Amino acid sequence: MKFCTQCGASVTLRIPERDNLPRYVCEACAFIHYQNPKIVAGCLPEWEGKILLCRRAIEPRYGLWTLPAGFMENGESTVQAAAREALEEANAVVDDLALYSMYSLTHISQVYLMFRGRLREGRASPGTESLEVKLFTEAEIPWREMAFTVITETLVRYFEERRSGNFSLQMGDINRDPDGRVSIKRY
Amino acid sequence: MKFCTQCGASVTLRIPERDNLPRYVCEACAFIHYQNPKIVAGCLPEWEGKILLCRRAIEPRYGLWTLPAGFMENGESTVQAAAREALEEANAVVDDLALYSMYSLTHISQVYLMFRGRLREGRASPGTESLEVKLFTEAEIPWREMAFTVITETLVRYFEERRSGNFSLQMGDINRDPDGRVSIKRY
Repeated sequence: MKFCTQCGASVTLRIPERDNLPRYVCEACAFIHYQNPKIVAGCLPEWEGKILLCRRAIEPRYGLWTLPAGFMENGESTVQAAAREALEEANAVVDDLALYSMYSLTHISQVYLMFRGRLREGRASPGTESLEVKLFTEAEIPWREMAFTVITETLVRYFEERRSGNFSLQMGDINRDPDGRVSIKRY
Repeated sequence: MKFCTQCGASVTLRIPERDNLPRYVCEACAFIHYQNPKIVAGCLPEWEGKILLCRRAIEPRYGLWTLPAGFMENGESTVQAAAREALEEANAVVDDLALYSMYSLTHISQVYLMFRGRLREGRASPGTESLEVKLFTEAEIPWREMAFTVITETLVRYFEERRSGNFSLQMGDINRDPDGRVSIKRY
């Protein structure tokens, strides 16, 4: 950012008094602009052993597959955000949402919250951000055409746990270094 | 906000094309300013059956008790944020953090992530944002001098579950309406 949201003057990136991290500070009106991680909320819609995926109609990763997920909005709860994304991207109503995974993507300051849920009546159709939506068995998942590491990771863990018959909260950090190497730390 | 962070021109609050929520849009350079919920990460530091609380040296709620918690920063993971807050507010090292509660505070667009963890060597002392820090048994918790509903709710559930011998993830929404009435929805 270059200008103050409150007075329009130029901002400086510096560590304010009694702080220990650089912030965008307005030298004219002294306003401090804090920037914090964003939450991406989404779900794994389940129906008769299958999982609903969406093929992206938008960048990044146009044409690749993902679970319904997107940025949480002000004023809503995490569960509402996950349900809204399924409705927007797949015209899907998902009930009984329960938190399944929480991953911190430290290189882009995002926290993914993915919920398991039941796809009502197995019904879905593409929303404006999806080229197509489809229910997949584990064997049918298009692993080589997945859009995001965090979603692939969540689905891998989901199917592993489903085979073991016992679901538990998945926690981890995913980082991509400047050379593009991805590391995953599981808790 | 009043001014564009990119070009310093005035912003307008309106619904952009292909969107359904009002955003601060710059009519000069077309930049859209998205605003999203913030994560507050913290922990319940456990030591020999006691829990560490901090008495606040800052507003809001100066002088009242809370668990160590604060805004997650860009570039860190949720677990790192929870551990950092314990170190900053109570000079406390907390190990083996495991997610215990996730509450959405819809009226202020915050998501609280509270982790259970072991207070290393039972050691703590006030950081700059704390007047005092102290280990409390359940009977000693100063319930009427607690700073935040979400923290009280987390502690109530924690002690209930501890008596039952079985901890599980606590999920809920907390809302305060314009008249000040607080409602809690548990999942």
